[in-house]
Amino acid sequence: MTTQTTTLVNGVNVDQLVATVNAIQQDPALARFQFRAHNEWIAGGHTRTSIQGFYGAGKEDTSRSRPFILEGDEPPLLLGGNAGANAVETLLHALASCLAVGFIYNATAQGITVESLSFDLEGDLDLRAFLGLSKEVRPGYKEIHLSYRVKSNAPREKIVELCDYVQKTSPVLDIIRNPVPVTVTLDN
Amino acid sequence: MTTQTTTLVNGVNVDQLVATVNAIQQDPALARFQFRAHNEWIAGGHTRTSIQGFYGAGKEDTSRSRPFILEGDEPPLLLGGNAGANAVETLLHALASCLAVGFIYNATAQGITVESLSFDLEGDLDLRAFLGLSKEVRPGYKEIHLSYRVKSNAPREKIVELCDYVQKTSPVLDIIRNPVPVTVTLDN
Repeated sequence: MTTQTTTLVNGVNVDQLVATVNAIQQDPALARFQFRAHNEWIAGGHTRTSIQGFYGAGKEDTSRSRPFILEGDEPPLLLGGNAGANAVETLLHALASCLAVGFIYNATAQGITVESLSFDLEGDLDLRAFLGLSKEVRPGYKEIHLSYRVKSNAPREKIVELCDYVQKTSPVLDIIRNPVPVTVTLDN
Repeated sequence: MTTQTTTLVNGVNVDQLVATVNAIQQDPALARFQFRAHNEWIAGGHTRTSIQGFYGAGKEDTSRSRPFILEGDEPPLLLGGNAGANAVETLLHALASCLAVGFIYNATAQGITVESLSFDLEGDLDLRAFLGLSKEVRPGYKEIHLSYRVKSNAPREKIVELCDYVQKTSPVLDIIRNPVPVTVTLDN
């Protein structure tokens, strides 16, 4: 008979967290990931993205039996039908979920128990570039503001320190704050 | 008796498109938008985002009677439960849906009929920064590659020209290719 004990802190398997970090420390090639998405235009501003496989830790992941389906659309004010959040709204979701995962995983590694964690995000955007009405205004967000609330057993200064650290290591925050090269090719 | 004729090209209301561009050209303040998201951590890598209201065209939008709910999570390999696509995957969806909307709206404005449009995206990421194992490696995507396919009544050179233009005016592509300031505050 075998008994297995799983230690969960903040819903994270601590032993697996430590094992993952150790495995990648031993073999940095395991840290190479490739994420993917396929998007199909439906009509007007409505598109649909399928996300399923990715490469990581030296092999193709097969954990997802079906793709995640994400709908994108614009509100009627921007000529869409509200079939989904729009692209710049979805980007705010990506940012929040990235910071949340970073916060929770690092809290877990430090033995900090988190009771609740939430984020409010606001992004200011001038539509004139998108509409072809200005070349001075940038197309994207001028600025994003994010506020967060935490309930935890850790003192406030520890939380602030943790959040500062998470900001240095968050993939999506890095992508937003710093330039990423994007190559575009036409296939047909 | 009143008869209204709506001209739809690519599922986009052409008259509304022209009216929107003209209205903002007359009063650039109408181009100021603020988009928002609220994210709550559930457990482990699982978070949930609500997206509903936004400010734009001089007022609060009330077109959405319920919020869009977006789930974020990690795959088991990254200590999650696959409750949703992860943050960097969702970012690829945001990029594709942004480019698709830009492509379709600009095609519509130019009288180009699009039969189909799809995107495949790949993003290469080294996890060592996120895991605290390297300060040399960046946390975010090293590079994103995007390929697209179009069926349309326009010649190939017109499509390439349109895609080049869309890349200059896409909000999410700008956010990824160029730095955006992000401010973070702790509320409690």
